[in-house]
Amino acid sequence: MTRNTDAHDSDGLKTPRTTLRRKPDRGSHDWETIAAILDEGLICHIAFETDGQPYAIPTNYGRDGRTLYIHGSPASRLLQSLAEGIPMCLTVTLLDGIILARSVFHHSMNYRSVVVLGTARRVDAEEEKLQALEVIVDHIVPGRWGDARIPNERELKAVLVLRLEIDEASAKLRPGGVVDEPEDMDLPVWAGRLPLSLAVGEPEVDPEVALEQVVPAYIRDYKRP
Amino acid sequence: MTRNTDAHDSDGLKTPRTTLRRKPDRGSHDWETIAAILDEGLICHIAFETDGQPYAIPTNYGRDGRTLYIHGSPASRLLQSLAEGIPMCLTVTLLDGIILARSVFHHSMNYRSVVVLGTARRVDAEEEKLQALEVIVDHIVPGRWGDARIPNERELKAVLVLRLEIDEASAKLRPGGVVDEPEDMDLPVWAGRLPLSLAVGEPEVDPEVALEQVVPAYIRDYKRP
Repeated sequence: MTRNTDAHDSDGLKTPRTTLRRKPDRGSHDWETIAAILDEGLICHIAFETDGQPYAIPTNYGRDGRTLYIHGSPASRLLQSLAEGIPMCLTVTLLDGIILARSVFHHSMNYRSVVVLGTARRVDAEEEKLQALEVIVDHIVPGRWGDARIPNERELKAVLVLRLEIDEASAKLRPGGVVDEPEDMDLPVWAGRLPLSLAVGEPEVDPEVALEQVVPAYIRDYKRP
Repeated sequence: MTRNTDAHDSDGLKTPRTTLRRKPDRGSHDWETIAAILDEGLICHIAFETDGQPYAIPTNYGRDGRTLYIHGSPASRLLQSLAEGIPMCLTVTLLDGIILARSVFHHSMNYRSVVVLGTARRVDAEEEKLQALEVIVDHIVPGRWGDARIPNERELKAVLVLRLEIDEASAKLRPGGVVDEPEDMDLPVWAGRLPLSLAVGEPEVDPEVALEQVVPAYIRDYKRP
């Protein structure tokens, strides 16, 4: 038996399909890295194929340990297709900046992304369904579940919940600054980095909310982890 | 011959595959709506399938009329697969806010997204390749192409460029505020909207750039259309 000596593969998430063929130095199979990107993202894009046509559809998600939950209407094509147990890919991408090099060729972006491959399973047990919704809501707005009215039986029946185990996954990261050819370094071109992030605006209260109802701290001080 | 009476289908982008099955009021096949979302986005997610596994991969893009361009290394799995002429989906998603309803069930997000279905074609002519790169660079940072050193022949050869016609596409939009059940309106729960947008930070100059080189206006005043 050979010991796996890849320090980034201690979590068994690396497979030929999640191994970067290009720029492997940008790839990671480290669990903490993957979990942090999944936790910071608000939406994912899910790839699946139906009738010979692939789709990439944005949706919300939540993470509970090594399990990802997604949800939606039982009538949604995305969820109906995935519930059949077809192969899928769940991707989360965070944009961190634009890299402006002296040459067009070396322009790039700072980003962090995670790709999870697998097959989703339908969650039928009411208890797990409710817990999955809590995970999704508290992923998007931590603290919200305890405040809002939780789903009743009718509402719970009207939601399809799927779970995807994080068994095969990889992260890809492009941090850092400008890289240029040595012969371009003296060109009279401004070069640098333009940082990008998620801006959170001022909360806008629903006009029907009673005046004495104050903005909860988790909304007022909202930021991503 | 019957006249098409769908006001949102004046551009022929609507097909059974790009027609929303759920909440059709959130869907649009209006060209101006689709173009505006494509122009505001910085990255897209491309769905494609290879060896029975779908992938959703983030990448940059640019639009020239009804043509989308993407580019990358000839060694990239994404571009290699797409260059074979397989069906693909290009999705752009803009997040505009979080909707906090009184009930968990009615939580939602404000977003605008576009899905384009089709098959990419490889761009081989040097002239179109160069023009495609200009479209992509000026999509991300308008004005940049005129400043940076444009690709030489060797660099141009080292880039694979693909084009995708926007023949089959749809937009999906969730604007507006909170929707709650009438019986929940008096619950003592704060409800409202938390706006989200793209934040652009202060430009960080590359340490090797000469002191007299000022930040160009298109960087200093950078914002999305």
